[in-house]
Amino acid sequence: MNTYLDCIPCFFKQALEAARLAGAGEKEQKMVIDELCGMVPGFMLEMSPPEMGVLIYGMVNRITGKKDPYKKIKEKSNKMALEIYPELKKRLDDSPDRLFTAVEMAIMGNVIDYGVKNNLNIEQEINNFLKKDFNTTSNQNKRVFDYRQFCDTLNKASSVLYLGDNSGEIVFDRILIEELPVPVIYVVRGGPIINDVTIDDAVVCGLDKVARVISSGCKAPGTILNSCSREFIQLFNAADMIISKGQGNFETLSDIGRPIYFLFKAKCSVVAGMIGCEMGSMVLKGKGKNEKIVK
Amino acid sequence: MNTYLDCIPCFFKQALEAARLAGAGEKEQKMVIDELCGMVPGFMLEMSPPEMGVLIYGMVNRITGKKDPYKKIKEKSNKMALEIYPELKKRLDDSPDRLFTAVEMAIMGNVIDYGVKNNLNIEQEINNFLKKDFNTTSNQNKRVFDYRQFCDTLNKASSVLYLGDNSGEIVFDRILIEELPVPVIYVVRGGPIINDVTIDDAVVCGLDKVARVISSGCKAPGTILNSCSREFIQLFNAADMIISKGQGNFETLSDIGRPIYFLFKAKCSVVAGMIGCEMGSMVLKGKGKNEKIVK
Repeated sequence: MNTYLDCIPCFFKQALEAARLAGAGEKEQKMVIDELCGMVPGFMLEMSPPEMGVLIYGMVNRITGKKDPYKKIKEKSNKMALEIYPELKKRLDDSPDRLFTAVEMAIMGNVIDYGVKNNLNIEQEINNFLKKDFNTTSNQNKRVFDYRQFCDTLNKASSVLYLGDNSGEIVFDRILIEELPVPVIYVVRGGPIINDVTIDDAVVCGLDKVARVISSGCKAPGTILNSCSREFIQLFNAADMIISKGQGNFETLSDIGRPIYFLFKAKCSVVAGMIGCEMGSMVLKGKGKNEKIVK
Repeated sequence: MNTYLDCIPCFFKQALEAARLAGAGEKEQKMVIDELCGMVPGFMLEMSPPEMGVLIYGMVNRITGKKDPYKKIKEKSNKMALEIYPELKKRLDDSPDRLFTAVEMAIMGNVIDYGVKNNLNIEQEINNFLKKDFNTTSNQNKRVFDYRQFCDTLNKASSVLYLGDNSGEIVFDRILIEELPVPVIYVVRGGPIINDVTIDDAVVCGLDKVARVISSGCKAPGTILNSCSREFIQLFNAADMIISKGQGNFETLSDIGRPIYFLFKAKCSVVAGMIGCEMGSMVLKGKGKNEKIVK
């Protein structure tokens, strides 16, 4: 998707939050704002928001001198998610439809996103999540859920390419991957950006035990195909089924004709408008097309 | 209050909304964003947000060529509020404490603010408001309500200077003014800015029948004392009690040592933080000091 003008106020908010998280004082925070003011008029709106994100977070890192300001937050969210992993598995055992519940859990894991909301109380979110009664009829009005189509594609697939999103959330991805009946390749970012998953997170959270883990080669908070490695592109083009987690992957892949299922929480009005759902909705959205792309 | 860095993303959002409301196309909207990018680095954060607002909305009007883009919205919100005026009066008749309920109504009227949220469904807000059970114990956790102090000051006052805020809301101000036992001077802005009240709104909504209506002389979405008329400053300095409606008046007068009661809905996290309440709270906040200011 292109960047919308509505994304611009949000860029300023995100830059400010990232600067604060990197320990910037008032003066440095103002420098970040002013620098962004200099960048925005040159932005090509044909670029996707995560492409802008590379430029914006790169600038914040340059000004604050921190290369990976979200490192501690990432470690903390992985730790907290791992702590509730046994409880999640127990929930799954009690569920009438394990795959359905695992898909819901994978989407719920997407609430852990410091890129959109840095003061999110993970623990409270997880507790609310654990208290939530998972069943097929709950919250029907507040979600898009192409579950039947998802199952159809999965039943015909010989493997799944699974595009990860955030740390913490990655543990919820593991839950879903453990329910998938076919081999999975789990894809992480090419380097640290916001709280997005890298190889380190995959190892800490044991994804390497349940999937083959590779990097997309792309260091953006999304999957910009032009910036991905040849290895990833080959796997992407050949995949029977792609599970894409998070809004950043949706923003970079929504126009691509591949059998992609987007699992995320719609965190802004622009994306919610594109999907045709309310803001905050749980989304399982299938594309279902099967055209090859060329790099 | 000063402008916070957190206000800056909001300035971009407001400028974009104002441009759209003025009928600007995509290209003009982008011009507004780019122009604001050029202005922000020069902003003195010691200025209050409404002082910035004068510059920002002035720029939007210049680019879009519309001097009063909110004119129709103002007319509509006045009309809708006037239509429910008889119902509000009936509610008041059924209330165990007329003054208390009238104060609550005046604060609730502050939800009608296109400066913060242009897609607010006024009718729904008003219906929710009419359905709401007004009593002294409801929503205690979500509000600051210096009602006793308000009554004490009112009982000793020989007149009240009442600073208006938005169109539509002005009808709710009339409800409160009709319950006040002393003469009232109702103050409107010095010219059209966003959906703020001007002399025209006061006449249309019959405020001239229940109060003496004057202009502050200031064309900002707040009351910047340095920009106000001599007549207003004299009345402001001499007033026994000042009722100040809306966040814009709070933002420009929060540091002034006068017996001001601020009535508004806390619409942003910065102001909610200053008051010590949750965002969205109903606020009746008294200063209670009685120092003279000098212009």
